[in-house]
Amino acid sequence: MRALSKLVVFGVGLIGGSFSLALKRADAVSEAVGIGRDEANLEIARRVGIAQRTYTIAQPWQHELGDAALVLLAVPVGQMAGVFAQIAPHLGRETVVTDAGSTKRDVILAARAALARTLPRFVPAHPIAGTEHSGAGAAFESLYDGRNVILTPLAETHEDAVALVEACWAACGAHVSRLDAARHDALFAAVSHLPHALAFALVGALAARPDRDEYFRYAAGGFRDFTRLAASHPEMWRDICLANRDALRAELADYGAELARIDLLLERADGSALAAYFAAARDARAAWLATHSTDGDV
Amino acid sequence: MRALSKLVVFGVGLIGGSFSLALKRADAVSEAVGIGRDEANLEIARRVGIAQRTYTIAQPWQHELGDAALVLLAVPVGQMAGVFAQIAPHLGRETVVTDAGSTKRDVILAARAALARTLPRFVPAHPIAGTEHSGAGAAFESLYDGRNVILTPLAETHEDAVALVEACWAACGAHVSRLDAARHDALFAAVSHLPHALAFALVGALAARPDRDEYFRYAAGGFRDFTRLAASHPEMWRDICLANRDALRAELADYGAELARIDLLLERADGSALAAYFAAARDARAAWLATHSTDGDV
Repeated sequence: MRALSKLVVFGVGLIGGSFSLALKRADAVSEAVGIGRDEANLEIARRVGIAQRTYTIAQPWQHELGDAALVLLAVPVGQMAGVFAQIAPHLGRETVVTDAGSTKRDVILAARAALARTLPRFVPAHPIAGTEHSGAGAAFESLYDGRNVILTPLAETHEDAVALVEACWAACGAHVSRLDAARHDALFAAVSHLPHALAFALVGALAARPDRDEYFRYAAGGFRDFTRLAASHPEMWRDICLANRDALRAELADYGAELARIDLLLERADGSALAAYFAAARDARAAWLATHSTDGDV
Repeated sequence: MRALSKLVVFGVGLIGGSFSLALKRADAVSEAVGIGRDEANLEIARRVGIAQRTYTIAQPWQHELGDAALVLLAVPVGQMAGVFAQIAPHLGRETVVTDAGSTKRDVILAARAALARTLPRFVPAHPIAGTEHSGAGAAFESLYDGRNVILTPLAETHEDAVALVEACWAACGAHVSRLDAARHDALFAAVSHLPHALAFALVGALAARPDRDEYFRYAAGGFRDFTRLAASHPEMWRDICLANRDALRAELADYGAELARIDLLLERADGSALAAYFAAARDARAAWLATHSTDGDV
């Protein structure tokens, strides 16, 4: 790809910061500007080379957008609508806009409401990567190596805008694919949002007990792995769960029915059906791991 | 402790094999005998030094029990009753019996039914350790270093029998504590058996879908950690779930109520309550990790 003349990143954290660092590693960007809420974090972003200029959201950053080749929104999905509204009047004629949100229908809805004539140059995207850490100091250039990035273009999205975003993510080392936005949200409700909710619920159920210390005392490695997702950022996951709540509630209902099936096997003390159920799950997971072992986080 | 003159292990796998190796490392056992179902596994047990003599369960091993200082039952909990019945007539007057089962009330029930006069020398135990591997070849002498072992003695258990088993596990490097058996089963239903059932259920629910390949395709690191427990041995977990099914069913019901609470917050789109719920769970987990980071598996 031809190097981007200018990248502007809203939300200079792990995701947005690593995107900029990965593009710089590939010599795929000339100039990077970072905009965020916290000056201390922006200072780190400048120091580690994520951006040469930064602005807090309250400072005048609007003049940076007119000649930007690409604007990335890497803020929590609950803040996307506000950022779209703020940037819309200032985007250049050639500027492509993309995002890194974990849900896609709600981000598209917000973009439709705010972007108007710029909408065909908006490319919704979801990089499947992350760590438990956040902030500019947690960003690193190899975060996206070998990870999946999913684009969910609209019917009206210009193909050259999609191609640009695709080339950027490929330059970051990622595998890029495309999905329908509603299908994306349904799939991730099942494989990501539901497991997060389940992990929060398990810890939440124990933490609410008066004798919780005794439970936690005997919790061990299996519990630690199972609940690792409950270490995730509460506000980020509130946003994701609300943004995708219809799909997540459908998955919660489906999962409840699955637990009822297991409960019935326990009630009947049906050992052979229970062992067959566990074996099928183990085998399905082993088959998945055998083909997807290089996949990334969250 | 004075070294055991003779240890007899029923079930020469990861748990029983590692117990023997750990005692040998501490010079705490003179002679070790292994009894199991599979001759190939027993040959490995002899080769790696778990036992100098081995017998399949069909061979005449009964004469080895009369002068045994300690007999360890490290078989799946569903097989404990059968082993108790087979060993009861052959135990020596001084022989102490213990087990390594993950559930305790059912093992105690089986011991009560079979051991009769030997019952005061039976010490129920649960080592909180394990890996995803099994068999004699997976055993290693440091498995119990720093891990918790819980003893659940009966009212009639002789204190010197408890002291012997306690000393053995301490020699293996473990931290030993005591619990009431019913309390043990309730605690482990919540922190171990429930998470296993939840992990099996999540994989099971996805694996049953006709388009499961597409779901699994986008599952990533969070899903992998969350479902690691679904890699566990199906028959072992069938036994555990059935042995502790009343406590597990109570936990399943409680967990279902917790999911209903989350669903209600989603239905109401109550973002601040959802964020507070997630934050409380994250904080509780972080506090737990800070004080229990050395705990073991399963």
